[in-house]
Amino acid sequence: MGDMTYTLVLLRHGESEWNAKNLFTGWVDVALSEKGRGEASRGGDLLKEAGVSPDVVHTSLLRRAIMTANLALDTADRHWIPVKRSWRLNERHYGALQGKDKKQIRDEYGEEQFMLWRRSYDVPPPDIELGSEWSQDADVRYAGEPIPRAEALKQVLARALPYWEGEIVPDLKAGKTVLVAAHGNSLRAIIKHLDNVDDSTIAGLNVPTGIPLLYELDEETLAPTVPGGTYLDPEAAKEAIAAVANQGK
Amino acid sequence: MGDMTYTLVLLRHGESEWNAKNLFTGWVDVALSEKGRGEASRGGDLLKEAGVSPDVVHTSLLRRAIMTANLALDTADRHWIPVKRSWRLNERHYGALQGKDKKQIRDEYGEEQFMLWRRSYDVPPPDIELGSEWSQDADVRYAGEPIPRAEALKQVLARALPYWEGEIVPDLKAGKTVLVAAHGNSLRAIIKHLDNVDDSTIAGLNVPTGIPLLYELDEETLAPTVPGGTYLDPEAAKEAIAAVANQGK
Repeated sequence: MGDMTYTLVLLRHGESEWNAKNLFTGWVDVALSEKGRGEASRGGDLLKEAGVSPDVVHTSLLRRAIMTANLALDTADRHWIPVKRSWRLNERHYGALQGKDKKQIRDEYGEEQFMLWRRSYDVPPPDIELGSEWSQDADVRYAGEPIPRAEALKQVLARALPYWEGEIVPDLKAGKTVLVAAHGNSLRAIIKHLDNVDDSTIAGLNVPTGIPLLYELDEETLAPTVPGGTYLDPEAAKEAIAAVANQGK
Repeated sequence: MGDMTYTLVLLRHGESEWNAKNLFTGWVDVALSEKGRGEASRGGDLLKEAGVSPDVVHTSLLRRAIMTANLALDTADRHWIPVKRSWRLNERHYGALQGKDKKQIRDEYGEEQFMLWRRSYDVPPPDIELGSEWSQDADVRYAGEPIPRAEALKQVLARALPYWEGEIVPDLKAGKTVLVAAHGNSLRAIIKHLDNVDDSTIAGLNVPTGIPLLYELDEETLAPTVPGGTYLDPEAAKEAIAAVANQGK
Protein backbone atom coordinates (compact mmCIF):
# COMPACT_ATOMS: atom_id res chain seq x y z
CA MET A 1 0.00 0.00 0.00
CA GLY A 2 1.17 3.53 -0.76
CA ASP A 3 1.28 6.44 1.64
CA MET A 4 -0.93 8.71 -0.39
CA THR A 5 -4.52 8.40 -1.51
CA TYR A 6 -6.45 9.64 -4.50
CA THR A 7 -9.86 11.24 -4.04
CA LEU A 8 -12.89 10.13 -6.06
CA VAL A 9 -16.48 11.33 -5.63
CA LEU A 10 -19.42 9.51 -7.22
CA LEU A 11 -22.69 11.41 -7.60
CA ARG A 12 -25.93 9.88 -8.89
CA HIS A 13 -28.26 12.36 -10.59
CA GLY A 14 -31.28 13.67 -8.75
CA GLU A 15 -34.87 12.60 -9.48
CA SER A 16 -35.82 12.85 -13.15
CA GLU A 17 -39.23 13.51 -14.64
CA TRP A 18 -39.53 9.80 -15.41
CA ASN A 19 -38.32 8.56 -12.01
CA ALA A 20 -41.30 10.46 -10.67
CA LYS A 21 -43.59 8.78 -13.24
CA ASN A 22 -42.16 5.28 -12.57
CA LEU A 23 -41.11 4.66 -16.20
CA PHE A 24 -38.05 2.73 -17.40
CA THR A 25 -35.70 5.47 -18.59
CA GLY A 26 -32.30 4.07 -19.61
CA TRP A 27 -30.88 6.18 -22.42
CA VAL A 28 -34.00 8.30 -22.93
CA ASP A 29 -32.78 11.83 -22.25
CA VAL A 30 -35.31 13.13 -19.74
CA ALA A 31 -34.82 16.23 -17.59
CA LEU A 32 -34.44 16.51 -13.85
CA SER A 33 -37.64 17.19 -11.92
CA GLU A 34 -37.85 20.22 -9.65
CA LYS A 35 -37.08 17.86 -6.76
CA GLY A 36 -34.08 16.51 -8.71
CA ARG A 37 -32.66 20.00 -9.22
CA GLY A 38 -32.94 20.55 -5.49
CA GLU A 39 -31.13 17.26 -4.81
CA ALA A 40 -28.31 18.32 -7.15
CA SER A 41 -27.81 21.64 -5.37
CA ARG A 42 -27.94 19.87 -2.01
CA GLY A 43 -25.17 17.56 -3.31
CA GLY A 44 -23.10 20.68 -4.00
CA ASP A 45 -23.74 21.95 -0.47
CA LEU A 46 -22.51 18.63 0.93
CA LEU A 47 -19.29 18.84 -1.12
CA LYS A 48 -18.70 22.38 0.10
CA GLU A 49 -19.42 21.57 3.75
CA ALA A 50 -17.05 18.58 3.58
CA GLY A 51 -14.32 20.70 1.96
CA VAL A 52 -14.20 18.34 -1.03
CA SER A 53 -13.21 20.36 -4.12
CA PRO A 54 -13.40 18.50 -7.44
CA ASP A 55 -10.67 19.45 -9.93
CA VAL A 56 -12.35 17.76 -12.88
CA VAL A 57 -15.81 16.31 -13.57
CA HIS A 58 -16.75 13.36 -15.76
CA THR A 59 -20.38 13.02 -16.88
CA SER A 60 -22.49 10.82 -19.11
CA LEU A 61 -24.11 12.31 -22.24
CA LEU A 62 -27.53 12.45 -20.57
CA ARG A 63 -28.98 15.73 -19.33
CA ARG A 64 -30.04 14.45 -15.93
CA ALA A 65 -26.40 13.70 -15.03
CA ILE A 66 -25.06 16.78 -16.82
CA MET A 67 -27.51 19.12 -15.10
CA THR A 68 -26.83 17.46 -11.74
CA ALA A 69 -23.10 18.15 -12.23
CA ASN A 70 -23.80 21.72 -13.36
CA LEU A 71 -25.99 22.53 -10.37
CA ALA A 72 -23.86 20.74 -7.77
CA LEU A 73 -20.65 22.36 -9.00
CA ASP A 74 -22.24 25.80 -9.17
CA THR A 75 -23.40 25.42 -5.56
CA ALA A 76 -19.96 24.16 -4.52
CA ASP A 77 -18.22 27.10 -6.32
CA ARG A 78 -16.48 24.63 -8.65
CA HIS A 79 -18.52 25.42 -11.81
CA TRP A 80 -15.31 26.46 -13.61
CA ILE A 81 -13.44 23.12 -13.52
CA PRO A 82 -12.71 21.09 -16.69
CA VAL A 83 -15.50 18.83 -17.96
CA LYS A 84 -15.25 15.49 -19.75
CA ARG A 85 -18.18 13.49 -21.04
CA SER A 86 -18.76 10.03 -22.45
CA TRP A 87 -21.65 7.75 -23.42
CA ARG A 88 -19.68 5.08 -21.52
CA LEU A 89 -20.98 6.65 -18.29
CA ASN A 90 -24.61 6.55 -19.49
CA GLU A 91 -27.30 4.69 -17.57
CA ARG A 92 -27.85 1.04 -18.43
CA HIS A 93 -29.65 0.72 -21.77
CA TYR A 94 -33.03 -0.71 -20.86
CA GLY A 95 -33.69 -2.09 -24.35
CA ALA A 96 -37.32 -2.62 -25.31
CA LEU A 97 -38.41 -1.63 -21.80
CA GLN A 98 -37.41 2.03 -22.31
CA GLY A 99 -40.43 4.30 -22.05
CA LYS A 100 -42.57 1.55 -20.45
CA ASP A 101 -44.35 1.78 -17.11
CA LYS A 102 -42.57 -0.30 -14.46
CA LYS A 103 -45.76 -1.47 -12.78
CA GLN A 104 -47.31 -2.44 -16.12
CA ILE A 105 -44.24 -4.50 -17.06
CA ARG A 106 -44.34 -6.26 -13.69
CA ASP A 107 -48.03 -7.04 -14.10
CA GLU A 108 -47.49 -8.27 -17.67
CA TYR A 109 -44.38 -10.41 -17.16
CA GLY A 110 -44.61 -11.29 -13.48
CA GLU A 111 -42.46 -10.47 -10.50
CA GLU A 112 -39.73 -12.97 -11.30
CA GLN A 113 -39.02 -11.79 -14.85
CA PHE A 114 -39.37 -8.17 -13.75
CA MET A 115 -36.74 -8.58 -11.01
CA LEU A 116 -34.47 -10.53 -13.37
CA TRP A 117 -34.50 -7.62 -15.84
CA ARG A 118 -34.07 -5.06 -13.09
CA ARG A 119 -31.46 -6.74 -10.95
CA SER A 120 -29.75 -9.75 -12.52
CA TYR A 121 -26.09 -9.21 -13.27
CA ASP A 122 -26.07 -10.61 -16.77
CA VAL A 123 -29.61 -11.03 -18.19
CA PRO A 124 -30.39 -8.01 -20.40
CA PRO A 125 -33.95 -7.01 -21.34
CA PRO A 126 -35.06 -7.61 -24.96
CA ASP A 127 -33.27 -5.45 -27.57
CA ILE A 128 -34.91 -2.16 -28.48
CA GLU A 129 -36.31 -1.98 -32.01
CA LEU A 130 -34.16 0.27 -34.22
CA GLY A 131 -36.01 3.41 -35.29
CA SER A 132 -38.62 3.04 -32.57
CA GLU A 133 -39.80 5.94 -30.41
CA TRP A 134 -37.37 5.50 -27.51
CA SER A 135 -34.38 4.20 -29.49
CA GLN A 136 -31.18 6.28 -29.76
CA ASP A 137 -29.84 4.77 -32.99
CA ALA A 138 -30.40 8.00 -34.94
CA ASP A 139 -29.14 10.30 -32.15
CA VAL A 140 -26.15 12.30 -33.46
CA ARG A 141 -24.41 12.28 -30.09
CA TYR A 142 -23.73 8.54 -30.51
CA ALA A 143 -22.80 8.62 -34.19
CA GLY A 144 -19.98 6.17 -34.92
CA GLU A 145 -20.01 4.68 -31.41
CA PRO A 146 -20.67 0.97 -30.73
CA ILE A 147 -23.82 1.65 -28.72
CA PRO A 148 -25.92 -1.14 -27.23
CA ARG A 149 -29.55 -2.10 -27.91
CA ALA A 150 -30.06 -3.48 -24.39
CA GLU A 151 -27.78 -4.06 -21.43
CA ALA A 152 -27.54 -5.89 -18.15
CA LEU A 153 -25.09 -4.57 -15.53
CA LYS A 154 -22.41 -6.84 -16.96
CA GLN A 155 -22.51 -5.02 -20.30
CA VAL A 156 -22.51 -1.64 -18.54
CA LEU A 157 -19.34 -2.64 -16.70
CA ALA A 158 -17.74 -3.84 -19.94
CA ARG A 159 -18.25 -0.49 -21.68
CA ALA A 160 -17.63 1.72 -18.62
CA LEU A 161 -14.31 0.05 -17.70
CA PRO A 162 -12.32 1.32 -20.71
CA TYR A 163 -13.41 4.85 -19.80
CA TRP A 164 -12.51 4.30 -16.15
CA GLU A 165 -9.05 3.03 -17.09
CA GLY A 166 -8.43 5.40 -19.97
CA GLU A 167 -9.83 8.69 -18.70
CA ILE A 168 -10.66 8.65 -14.98
CA VAL A 169 -7.67 6.77 -13.57
CA PRO A 170 -5.18 9.08 -15.35
CA ASP A 171 -6.91 12.10 -13.76
CA LEU A 172 -6.71 10.43 -10.34
CA LYS A 173 -3.05 9.57 -10.86
CA ALA A 174 -2.39 13.21 -11.76
CA GLY A 175 -3.52 14.00 -8.20
CA LYS A 176 -6.85 15.49 -9.21
CA THR A 177 -9.97 15.16 -7.07
CA VAL A 178 -12.36 13.57 -9.57
CA LEU A 179 -16.15 13.91 -9.58
CA VAL A 180 -18.13 11.39 -11.63
CA ALA A 181 -21.73 12.52 -12.15
CA ALA A 182 -23.65 9.62 -13.61
CA HIS A 183 -26.40 7.04 -13.08
CA GLY A 184 -27.51 4.26 -10.77
CA ASN A 185 -26.10 1.49 -12.92
CA SER A 186 -22.96 3.10 -14.37
CA LEU A 187 -21.99 4.00 -10.79
CA ARG A 188 -22.81 0.48 -9.56
CA ALA A 189 -20.50 -0.82 -12.29
CA ILE A 190 -17.66 1.40 -11.08
CA ILE A 191 -18.34 0.45 -7.45
CA LYS A 192 -18.37 -3.27 -8.37
CA HIS A 193 -14.96 -2.82 -9.95
CA LEU A 194 -13.50 -0.65 -7.16
CA ASP A 195 -14.75 -2.69 -4.22
CA ASN A 196 -14.48 -6.00 -6.02
CA VAL A 197 -18.15 -6.80 -5.31
CA ASP A 198 -19.23 -10.27 -6.47
CA ASP A 199 -21.93 -10.79 -9.10
CA SER A 200 -24.70 -11.72 -6.67
CA THR A 201 -23.94 -9.12 -3.97
CA ILE A 202 -24.04 -6.25 -6.48
CA ALA A 203 -27.75 -7.00 -7.08
CA GLY A 204 -28.57 -5.67 -3.62
CA LEU A 205 -26.38 -2.59 -3.82
CA ASN A 206 -28.27 0.66 -4.41
CA VAL A 207 -26.85 4.17 -4.86
CA PRO A 208 -29.01 7.01 -3.54
CA THR A 209 -29.60 10.12 -5.67
CA GLY A 210 -27.83 13.41 -5.01
CA ILE A 211 -25.61 12.31 -2.10
CA PRO A 212 -21.89 12.44 -2.93
CA LEU A 213 -20.10 9.14 -2.24
CA LEU A 214 -16.48 9.79 -1.31
CA TYR A 215 -13.71 7.28 -1.94
CA GLU A 216 -10.09 7.57 -0.91
CA LEU A 217 -8.10 5.18 -3.11
CA ASP A 218 -4.69 3.77 -2.34
CA GLU A 219 -2.17 5.36 -4.71
CA GLU A 220 -0.65 2.03 -5.73
CA THR A 221 -3.51 -0.46 -5.77
CA LEU A 222 -6.46 1.98 -6.22
CA ALA A 223 -8.18 -0.05 -3.48
CA PRO A 224 -10.64 2.00 -1.39
CA THR A 225 -9.22 2.74 2.07
CA VAL A 226 -12.82 2.42 3.35
CA PRO A 227 -14.64 -0.36 1.45
CA GLY A 228 -17.84 1.02 -0.07
CA GLY A 229 -16.69 4.58 0.43
CA THR A 230 -18.31 7.21 2.66
CA TYR A 231 -21.54 9.07 1.90
CA LEU A 232 -21.26 12.76 2.76
CA ASP A 233 -24.69 12.54 4.43
CA PRO A 234 -24.74 8.99 5.87
CA GLU A 235 -28.18 9.26 7.50
CA ALA A 236 -29.89 10.51 4.35
CA ALA A 237 -28.05 7.86 2.32
CA LYS A 238 -29.34 5.07 4.55
CA GLU A 239 -32.95 6.24 4.18
CA ALA A 240 -32.62 6.77 0.42
CA ILE A 241 -31.06 3.34 -0.15
CA ALA A 242 -34.06 1.74 1.55
CA ALA A 243 -36.40 3.79 -0.66
CA VAL A 244 -34.60 2.74 -3.90
CA ALA A 245 -34.83 -0.92 -2.86
CA ASN A 246 -38.62 -0.56 -2.62
CA GLN A 247 -38.99 1.08 -6.06
CA GLY A 248 -41.55 -0.60 -8.29
CA LYS A 249 -43.14 -2.42 -5.34
CA MET B 1 -11.35 32.95 -50.70
CA GLY B 2 -12.22 29.33 -50.11
CA ASP B 3 -15.43 27.55 -51.08
CA MET B 4 -16.35 26.45 -47.58
CA THR B 5 -17.09 28.38 -44.43
CA TYR B 6 -16.64 27.68 -40.74
CA THR B 7 -19.45 28.41 -38.30
CA LEU B 8 -18.88 30.43 -35.13
CA VAL B 9 -21.52 31.56 -32.65
CA LEU B 10 -20.83 34.21 -30.02
CA LEU B 11 -23.15 34.43 -27.01
CA ARG B 12 -22.96 37.09 -24.31
CA HIS B 13 -24.25 35.97 -20.91
CA GLY B 14 -27.68 37.07 -19.73
CA GLU B 15 -28.26 39.70 -17.06
CA SER B 16 -26.33 39.09 -13.85
CA GLU B 17 -27.27 40.06 -10.33
CA TRP B 18 -24.84 42.98 -10.56
CA ASN B 19 -25.92 44.15 -14.01
CA ALA B 20 -29.30 44.64 -12.38
CA LYS B 21 -27.67 46.59 -9.49
CA ASN B 22 -25.54 48.74 -11.85
CA LEU B 23 -22.20 47.73 -10.25
CA PHE B 24 -18.88 47.26 -12.05
CA THR B 25 -18.45 43.47 -12.14
CA GLY B 26 -15.37 42.47 -14.14
CA TRP B 27 -13.93 39.28 -12.68
CA VAL B 28 -16.23 39.20 -9.63
CA ASP B 29 -18.06 35.89 -10.02
CA VAL B 30 -21.71 36.89 -9.65
CA ALA B 31 -24.65 34.71 -10.64
CA LEU B 32 -27.22 35.24 -13.38
CA SER B 33 -30.42 36.95 -12.31
CA GLU B 34 -33.77 35.26 -12.93
CA LYS B 35 -34.09 37.45 -16.03
CA GLY B 36 -30.57 36.37 -17.10
CA ARG B 37 -31.48 32.69 -16.84
CA GLY B 38 -34.49 33.36 -19.04
CA GLU B 39 -32.29 35.15 -21.60
CA ALA B 40 -29.93 32.16 -21.67
CA SER B 41 -32.75 29.70 -22.38
CA ARG B 42 -34.14 32.03 -25.03
CA GLY B 43 -30.67 32.00 -26.64
CA GLY B 44 -30.93 28.21 -26.80
CA ASP B 45 -34.36 28.46 -28.42
CA LEU B 46 -32.92 30.79 -31.07
CA LEU B 47 -30.11 28.32 -31.84
CA LYS B 48 -32.61 25.49 -32.16
CA GLU B 49 -35.02 27.47 -34.35
CA ALA B 50 -32.14 28.49 -36.65
CA GLY B 51 -30.90 24.90 -36.87
CA VAL B 52 -27.49 25.93 -35.52
CA SER B 53 -26.01 22.99 -33.59
CA PRO B 54 -22.79 23.71 -31.70
CA ASP B 55 -20.30 20.82 -31.65
CA VAL B 56 -18.13 22.32 -28.91
CA VAL B 57 -18.50 25.19 -26.43
CA HIS B 58 -15.81 27.50 -25.06
CA THR B 59 -16.57 29.48 -21.90
CA SER B 60 -14.82 31.82 -19.48
CA LEU B 61 -14.25 30.73 -15.87
CA LEU B 62 -17.09 32.93 -14.61
CA ARG B 63 -20.43 31.45 -13.61
CA ARG B 64 -22.58 33.93 -15.51
CA ALA B 65 -21.05 32.74 -18.83
CA ILE B 66 -20.89 29.09 -17.74
CA MET B 67 -24.53 29.03 -16.62
CA THR B 68 -25.60 30.83 -19.79
CA ALA B 69 -23.88 28.12 -21.85
CA ASN B 70 -25.39 25.36 -19.69
CA LEU B 71 -28.94 26.70 -20.00
CA ALA B 72 -28.73 27.63 -23.69
CA LEU B 73 -27.25 24.25 -24.66
CA ASP B 74 -29.79 22.35 -22.57
CA THR B 75 -32.61 24.21 -24.30
CA ALA B 76 -31.00 23.59 -27.70
CA ASP B 77 -30.56 19.84 -26.93
CA ARG B 78 -26.78 20.23 -27.16
CA HIS B 79 -26.01 19.92 -23.44
CA TRP B 80 -23.82 16.86 -24.15
CA ILE B 81 -21.16 18.51 -26.35
CA PRO B 82 -17.51 18.89 -25.22
CA VAL B 83 -16.71 21.90 -23.02
CA LYS B 84 -13.52 23.96 -22.84
CA ARG B 85 -12.92 26.84 -20.45
CA SER B 86 -10.31 29.54 -20.00
CA TRP B 87 -9.76 32.69 -17.94
CA ARG B 88 -8.66 34.22 -21.26
CA LEU B 89 -12.37 34.51 -22.16
CA ASN B 90 -13.20 36.29 -18.88
CA GLU B 91 -14.77 39.73 -18.81
CA ARG B 92 -12.43 42.71 -18.78
CA HIS B 93 -10.80 43.11 -15.37
CA TYR B 94 -12.23 46.35 -14.03
CA GLY B 95 -9.38 46.88 -11.56
CA ALA B 96 -10.14 49.07 -8.55
CA LEU B 97 -13.62 49.79 -9.93
CA GLN B 98 -14.81 46.19 -9.32
CA GLY B 99 -17.67 46.14 -6.84
CA LYS B 100 -18.25 49.91 -7.18
CA ASP B 101 -21.53 51.57 -8.15
CA LYS B 102 -21.36 52.91 -11.72
CA LYS B 103 -23.38 56.03 -10.97
CA GLN B 104 -21.28 56.81 -7.88
CA ILE B 105 -18.04 56.50 -9.88
CA ARG B 106 -19.43 58.80 -12.56
CA ASP B 107 -20.47 61.39 -9.95
CA GLU B 108 -17.08 61.14 -8.21
CA TYR B 109 -14.78 61.23 -11.24
CA GLY B 110 -16.93 63.02 -13.82
CA GLU B 111 -18.42 61.92 -17.11
CA GLU B 112 -15.19 62.21 -19.10
CA GLN B 113 -13.06 59.98 -16.86
CA PHE B 114 -16.00 57.57 -16.45
CA MET B 115 -16.41 57.14 -20.20
CA LEU B 116 -12.65 56.84 -20.67
CA TRP B 117 -12.56 53.92 -18.23
CA ARG B 118 -15.66 52.37 -19.72
CA ARG B 119 -14.99 52.80 -23.39
CA SER B 120 -11.43 53.84 -24.28
CA TYR B 121 -9.48 51.21 -26.15
CA ASP B 122 -6.30 51.40 -24.13
CA VAL B 123 -6.77 53.33 -20.85
CA PRO B 124 -7.28 50.79 -18.04
CA PRO B 125 -8.86 51.72 -14.71
CA PRO B 126 -6.57 51.87 -11.62
CA ASP B 127 -5.13 48.50 -10.52
CA ILE B 128 -7.08 46.55 -7.93
CA GLU B 129 -5.41 46.27 -4.52
CA LEU B 130 -4.12 42.73 -3.93
CA GLY B 131 -5.98 40.99 -1.12
CA SER B 132 -8.90 43.43 -1.27
CA GLU B 133 -12.54 42.31 -1.17
CA TRP B 134 -13.13 42.08 -4.93
CA SER B 135 -9.64 40.96 -5.99
CA GLN B 136 -9.10 37.47 -7.46
CA ASP B 137 -5.41 37.11 -6.59
CA ALA B 138 -6.11 34.34 -4.04
CA ASP B 139 -8.69 32.54 -6.21
CA VAL B 140 -7.49 28.98 -6.87
CA ARG B 141 -8.96 28.89 -10.36
CA TYR B 142 -6.31 31.38 -11.50
CA ALA B 143 -3.37 29.85 -9.63
CA GLY B 144 -0.18 30.06 -11.69
CA GLU B 145 -1.79 32.17 -14.44
CA PRO B 146 -0.53 35.65 -15.39
CA ILE B 147 -3.77 37.35 -14.42
CA PRO B 148 -4.25 41.12 -14.71
CA ARG B 149 -4.99 43.71 -12.00
CA ALA B 150 -6.86 46.00 -14.40
CA GLU B 151 -7.52 45.96 -18.12
CA ALA B 152 -8.65 48.12 -20.99
CA LEU B 153 -10.02 46.40 -24.09
CA LYS B 154 -6.52 46.36 -25.57
CA GLN B 155 -5.27 44.10 -22.76
CA VAL B 156 -8.35 41.89 -23.09
CA LEU B 157 -7.57 41.40 -26.76
CA ALA B 158 -3.92 40.63 -25.97
CA ARG B 159 -4.81 37.79 -23.58
CA ALA B 160 -7.83 36.49 -25.53
CA LEU B 161 -5.98 36.24 -28.84
CA PRO B 162 -3.66 33.35 -27.85
CA TYR B 163 -6.75 31.38 -26.81
CA TRP B 164 -8.53 32.26 -30.06
CA GLU B 165 -5.56 31.13 -32.13
CA GLY B 166 -4.59 28.16 -29.97
CA GLU B 167 -7.95 26.64 -29.03
CA ILE B 168 -10.88 28.09 -30.99
CA VAL B 169 -9.39 28.30 -34.50
CA PRO B 170 -8.26 24.63 -34.40
CA ASP B 171 -11.84 23.60 -33.52
CA LEU B 172 -13.17 25.71 -36.41
CA LYS B 173 -10.62 24.23 -38.80
CA ALA B 174 -11.68 20.74 -37.71
CA GLY B 175 -15.10 21.65 -39.14
CA LYS B 176 -16.81 22.06 -35.79
CA THR B 177 -19.58 24.58 -35.16
CA VAL B 178 -18.11 26.52 -32.23
CA LEU B 179 -20.09 28.32 -29.53
CA VAL B 180 -18.23 30.90 -27.43
CA ALA B 181 -20.18 31.84 -24.30
CA ALA B 182 -18.49 34.82 -22.73
CA HIS B 183 -18.73 38.52 -21.88
CA GLY B 184 -19.32 41.94 -23.40
CA ASN B 185 -15.64 42.80 -23.62
CA SER B 186 -14.04 39.44 -24.38
CA LEU B 187 -16.55 39.10 -27.24
CA ARG B 188 -15.85 42.66 -28.42
CA ALA B 189 -12.15 41.72 -28.49
CA ILE B 190 -12.87 38.70 -30.70
CA ILE B 191 -15.16 40.77 -32.94
CA LYS B 192 -12.50 43.50 -33.25
CA HIS B 193 -10.03 40.85 -34.40
CA LEU B 194 -12.46 39.04 -36.74
CA ASP B 195 -13.96 42.11 -38.40
CA ASN B 196 -10.76 44.13 -38.22
CA VAL B 197 -12.55 46.97 -36.39
CA ASP B 198 -10.35 50.01 -35.75
CA ASP B 199 -9.52 51.24 -32.23
CA SER B 200 -11.99 54.14 -32.24
CA THR B 201 -14.92 52.35 -33.91
CA ILE B 202 -14.83 49.48 -31.39
CA ALA B 203 -15.76 51.96 -28.63
CA GLY B 204 -19.25 52.25 -30.11
CA LEU B 205 -19.79 48.53 -30.66
CA ASN B 206 -22.06 46.84 -28.12
CA VAL B 207 -23.01 43.17 -27.89
CA PRO B 208 -26.51 42.45 -26.58
CA THR B 209 -27.03 39.77 -23.92
CA GLY B 210 -28.46 36.33 -24.73
CA ILE B 211 -28.82 36.73 -28.51
CA PRO B 212 -26.55 34.36 -30.47
CA LEU B 213 -24.37 36.18 -33.02
CA LEU B 214 -23.65 33.90 -35.97
CA TYR B 215 -20.52 34.22 -38.10
CA GLU B 216 -19.69 32.26 -41.22
CA LEU B 217 -15.92 32.49 -41.71
CA ASP B 218 -14.05 31.93 -44.95
CA GLU B 219 -12.12 28.68 -44.67
CA GLU B 220 -8.86 30.20 -45.87
CA THR B 221 -8.81 33.74 -44.50
CA LEU B 222 -11.25 33.33 -41.55
CA ALA B 223 -12.82 36.59 -42.74
CA PRO B 224 -16.55 36.86 -41.95
CA THR B 225 -18.67 36.39 -45.08
CA VAL B 226 -21.06 38.94 -43.56
CA PRO B 227 -19.10 41.66 -41.73
CA GLY B 228 -20.31 41.94 -38.13
CA GLY B 229 -22.10 38.60 -38.35
CA THR B 230 -25.83 37.99 -38.06
CA TYR B 231 -27.86 38.08 -34.87
CA LEU B 232 -30.34 35.22 -34.69
CA ASP B 233 -32.98 37.71 -33.52
CA PRO B 234 -32.04 40.94 -35.36
CA GLU B 235 -34.94 43.03 -34.05
CA ALA B 236 -34.28 42.18 -30.41
CA ALA B 237 -30.55 42.73 -30.97
CA LYS B 238 -31.15 46.23 -32.31
CA GLU B 239 -33.25 47.19 -29.27
CA ALA B 240 -30.80 45.61 -26.83
CA ILE B 241 -27.78 47.35 -28.39
CA ALA B 242 -29.48 50.69 -27.89
CA ALA B 243 -30.18 49.79 -24.25
CA VAL B 244 -26.53 48.81 -23.57
CA ALA B 245 -25.35 52.11 -25.04
CA ASN B 246 -27.51 53.96 -22.51
CA GLN B 247 -26.20 51.99 -19.51
CA GLY B 248 -24.94 54.19 -16.67
CA LYS B 249 -26.71 57.26 -18.06
